[in-house]
Amino acid sequence: MQDSRSKPCSCPSLKLREVASMYFTMVAAFLVILVVALQGSAPRESDFPYKVPLDPQGLLELAWNVSYPEQAVHFQLLIRELQFGLLFGMSDRGEFENADLAVLWSDGHNSYFGDAWSDAKGQLHMDSQQDYQLLRARRAPEGLYLLFRRAFSTCDPKDYLIEDGTVHLIYGILEKPVRSLQAINISALRRGLQRVQLLKPNISIPELPGDVKTMEITAPDVVIPSQETTYWCYMAELPAGFPKHHIIMYEPVVTAGNEALVHHMEVFQCAAEFDSFPHYNGPCDSKMKPERLNYCRHVLAAWAMGAQAFYYPEEAGLAFGGPGSSRYLRLEIHYHNPLVFKGRRDSSGIRLYYTATLRPYDAGIMELGLVYTPVMAIPPGEDNFILTGYCTDKCTQLALPAAGIRIFASQLHTHLAGRKVATVLSRDGRERQVVNADGHYSPHFQEIRMLKEVVAVFPGDELITTCTYNTEDRSRATVGGFGILEEMCVNYVHYYPQTQLELCKSAVDPGYLHRYFNLVNRFNDEEICMCPQVSVPQQFYSIPWNTFNRDVLKSLYGFAPISMHCNKSSAVRFPGEWEKQPLPSITERLPEPVPRCPPAPAPQPAAPVPLNLGQLRR
Amino acid sequence: MQDSRSKPCSCPSLKLREVASMYFTMVAAFLVILVVALQGSAPRESDFPYKVPLDPQGLLELAWNVSYPEQAVHFQLLIRELQFGLLFGMSDRGEFENADLAVLWSDGHNSYFGDAWSDAKGQLHMDSQQDYQLLRARRAPEGLYLLFRRAFSTCDPKDYLIEDGTVHLIYGILEKPVRSLQAINISALRRGLQRVQLLKPNISIPELPGDVKTMEITAPDVVIPSQETTYWCYMAELPAGFPKHHIIMYEPVVTAGNEALVHHMEVFQCAAEFDSFPHYNGPCDSKMKPERLNYCRHVLAAWAMGAQAFYYPEEAGLAFGGPGSSRYLRLEIHYHNPLVFKGRRDSSGIRLYYTATLRPYDAGIMELGLVYTPVMAIPPGEDNFILTGYCTDKCTQLALPAAGIRIFASQLHTHLAGRKVATVLSRDGRERQVVNADGHYSPHFQEIRMLKEVVAVFPGDELITTCTYNTEDRSRATVGGFGILEEMCVNYVHYYPQTQLELCKSAVDPGYLHRYFNLVNRFNDEEICMCPQVSVPQQFYSIPWNTFNRDVLKSLYGFAPISMHCNKSSAVRFPGEWEKQPLPSITERLPEPVPRCPPAPAPQPAAPVPLNLGQLRR
Repeated sequence: MQDSRSKPCSCPSLKLREVASMYFTMVAAFLVILVVALQGSAPRESDFPYKVPLDPQGLLELAWNVSYPEQAVHFQLLIRELQFGLLFGMSDRGEFENADLAVLWSDGHNSYFGDAWSDAKGQLHMDSQQDYQLLRARRAPEGLYLLFRRAFSTCDPKDYLIEDGTVHLIYGILEKPVRSLQAINISALRRGLQRVQLLKPNISIPELPGDVKTMEITAPDVVIPSQETTYWCYMAELPAGFPKHHIIMYEPVVTAGNEALVHHMEVFQCAAEFDSFPHYNGPCDSKMKPERLNYCRHVLAAWAMGAQAFYYPEEAGLAFGGPGSSRYLRLEIHYHNPLVFKGRRDSSGIRLYYTATLRPYDAGIMELGLVYTPVMAIPPGEDNFILTGYCTDKCTQLALPAAGIRIFASQLHTHLAGRKVATVLSRDGRERQVVNADGHYSPHFQEIRMLKEVVAVFPGDELITTCTYNTEDRSRATVGGFGILEEMCVNYVHYYPQTQLELCKSAVDPGYLHRYFNLVNRFNDEEICMCPQVSVPQQFYSIPWNTFNRDVLKSLYGFAPISMHCNKSSAVRFPGEWEKQPLPSITERLPEPVPRCPPAPAPQPAAPVPLNLGQLRR
Repeated sequence: MQDSRSKPCSCPSLKLREVASMYFTMVAAFLVILVVALQGSAPRESDFPYKVPLDPQGLLELAWNVSYPEQAVHFQLLIRELQFGLLFGMSDRGEFENADLAVLWSDGHNSYFGDAWSDAKGQLHMDSQQDYQLLRARRAPEGLYLLFRRAFSTCDPKDYLIEDGTVHLIYGILEKPVRSLQAINISALRRGLQRVQLLKPNISIPELPGDVKTMEITAPDVVIPSQETTYWCYMAELPAGFPKHHIIMYEPVVTAGNEALVHHMEVFQCAAEFDSFPHYNGPCDSKMKPERLNYCRHVLAAWAMGAQAFYYPEEAGLAFGGPGSSRYLRLEIHYHNPLVFKGRRDSSGIRLYYTATLRPYDAGIMELGLVYTPVMAIPPGEDNFILTGYCTDKCTQLALPAAGIRIFASQLHTHLAGRKVATVLSRDGRERQVVNADGHYSPHFQEIRMLKEVVAVFPGDELITTCTYNTEDRSRATVGGFGILEEMCVNYVHYYPQTQLELCKSAVDPGYLHRYFNLVNRFNDEEICMCPQVSVPQQFYSIPWNTFNRDVLKSLYGFAPISMHCNKSSAVRFPGEWEKQPLPSITERLPEPVPRCPPAPAPQPAAPVPLNLGQLRR
């Protein structure tokens, strides 16, 4: 339907620039010429290393870069079919209420850009301080490019604070002209959210050796099911006699056109105990899936939307192949197809870069957090309930080498009630360093993240993992376990050199939990039966959740001794006494980070930036 | 030792002014001429309605006024014998660490004034934002007057926030020259603290009627004991047949020269049940004091240092005299004599203004808060433990008139562990209004305070009193009770019209406390005997205070039903069921006040104000 376009303008720096953009709909054809005041020097468009589609159709594409010296993000938003504007922004968990928004809108004659915020009812307001700074608007054959800048922290209380970890980006498309910013009815827009890690770590990429080889573990031309959510399972196999290699890098291979559908992908290695695994190519939840595939859980590689290539540190590689290592690999792809496209074919997957020249160290993966057990439970109706898993000094003393280990990457994991996850390193009772933290964690966005700083862990150190849950929509307790409605609290840390320690996790002592059930029973007029022959989940389900029973459960988890799993593999403990262990005591907390508000460049005043409207056509 | 003085200077406004001050010590004679830049218009010196001596010798005298429109305090500090400067400031509880200070210092040649702060070690630093604004320095025969201004809130995180309630003022005297602000060794100074209510309410004073009479209840030329602390008791008597009158105002009568020694004074009326009381004039803790004086506890008037005259609202007066009212009064004076002056004679006391023309309403006093019972206890080692006393809707429904009562004054009361007290009015589960709150409450400074706004309380309203305690210096639990090392949580509210309700207080249900003791017993491996035949204090004393037992006690107090004392007099309850009452539930809290930072006049830059030094003499 597009029939007319203007030439891209040349954009002299530090001057006003003109940009024309056109759009025809069935109703109206609309030409916008944007005139924008430049604010400082804008980065070149090639300077955006990170890219993600915002909507399932891929009409909006976001590219960005991160400047740690400036403490700012530059966004480049490509709008393929501009109508009457759009909203782009950030909010705590992707909601459109209490969101921080950059808005481009047109009343059919004039167009404007401004920094806005939405209140608790979703009503838009102009921000008193303009912190989304429009740097350039440029028309290209593929669409309109908007370039703008945003400091991590603005110290405007209406603004979102850009932090490490997940950021929930939101967008909305204006399909009709609007008189003013305030007139935008946010709930009537075509809109959506996209989760990304905005603040990618600024780490140097190790050089690949000359003998590097690649192997693609990709889906064999799969027809993506026409349903919103599919987890696709495909079994691949290493060549017979494939010797030990080091994976030193991997990257996604996404079939062109499917960028908005391939949500995340993982390659798992199967258990070495089994000589062979059946072939399979189908949905992971199919009844036809052979049960043995459940033994393919050792993560080799993981990618999620917005993530880039994953590089191992130059001293280490992930061993695969050779004796004691299964030849069988399972590729799992999460297709997210909310518009229910039919018949899309896909051959996405992961490309492994590996070398036969082994690096000095094998990399390993260790599980921190909570044991998968129902004794760790969350009452219903909690907006902010915290469970904590410990890797104690006693376990690290026994299991780590004197020279310590280096954690370089981390993947946080909970089930559906998880809202925040953090692991902190403590030494001699004093918190020293955050290993990885995500204050906007989503169970729908689990990436392996390179750490900004490698964390050295020595014998005697403690690793404390806290998970924050929301169970406001639940009517009964949520217990720990494998089920999707049960919960986990795990941080898979990637480190080197590999040790025997695979699992360093805890759970409350079951005897103390039993005392809690007894106490609840007696305190609440013995109305409920907390009989010991009943299972732990059943006992949790029968608790009347008044404030006292909630508070005392919190106190119990903060006080009772723990049962430690300090394990070589999930079933084999290191020798030692691991029951009724004292909780690590923390005498000194890390200070809360105080957001800095960078003074330069100064934010713009509280008025929208007018954009000159060129021609209006019907 | 002073032998030379310069004339007071004339001070043209908005210009630099010169002030000369001299001081001779055995070592050096020292003349300081101060030149100060004026900042805005300074109030006249007659404009300081409030006055308090800072030190026990009365060398430093502070006068001040409060401007609510400007949200600022003007201080006028009289320094009678200036040496090499002084510190004046405010801190949370009168400590010299983490304090906010105005400092006048001299290196022997030049003198400076600046806004400073002390860190956690007591080291002084110049403030990055100068919020103590020096307005004038003036030499008079009696000493040097410094006039400066301070906004209630400066939004400088190093500054003290001036709030309602008690403010701990601190001072320190520089007896030697110092090279710089940083060189001041705060711990080596002669220094002290003085508590005042800085933000006096801005209420209009009712006119006194023509027939007003006065009566002085004063000590009969007492010799102040030469010890730091004395509570002096003196019995006075109304004339036989003295009919009912209304006290409509009272004010302190302080013997000239003893202003720094008379800390607080109260007049109590004795119980009407006894026909007569013995005369007495002596220390309140003397073995010779007749026991019957313990029945003289009904407060008629109370004054503390820094307080002014107390006026009843024009519709009400405090009844005294007439049938059913004792003729006997007890005056209690707290002499604070840290320098142990000997032989000082004192005839201080309180002057009552009363009228025979009764006002429309009798005023009454009602006790809110906690019952005096050991069931309400504070574990040892707590820095911030909160106990809450309730006056429930059920009690106010029964005992208050339909037109409600008006609370116009309040006296907060705890024993030595009390740190904060607040009473909040709640209606239909929603907090509506703070009745009285003191975030820097000190048990050593208990005034009757006029409220800024009269609070109307209607049948069905709830009055919730919270007290915050610090027991960090104690090794065993602090239980509720009358003893000085036991605790209270009381707000004596002064209101009209008088009702039969004298006491509206609560305590946790003893049955639930018993369950708590049982629970502690079972949970802690039954190591301790929590036998029911043991007294409640003994049971509290034997609890091992781990985090669990502490947390669960807090949870108990926040959950368990209460026993209400909804009493006509301390022993007679209103008819009704008052045991096992549900805790009032609060669905909406009052928002935390957000400090405003007044923009004008702008704070000065972060540099000391130099003061021209005139002559230096030996």
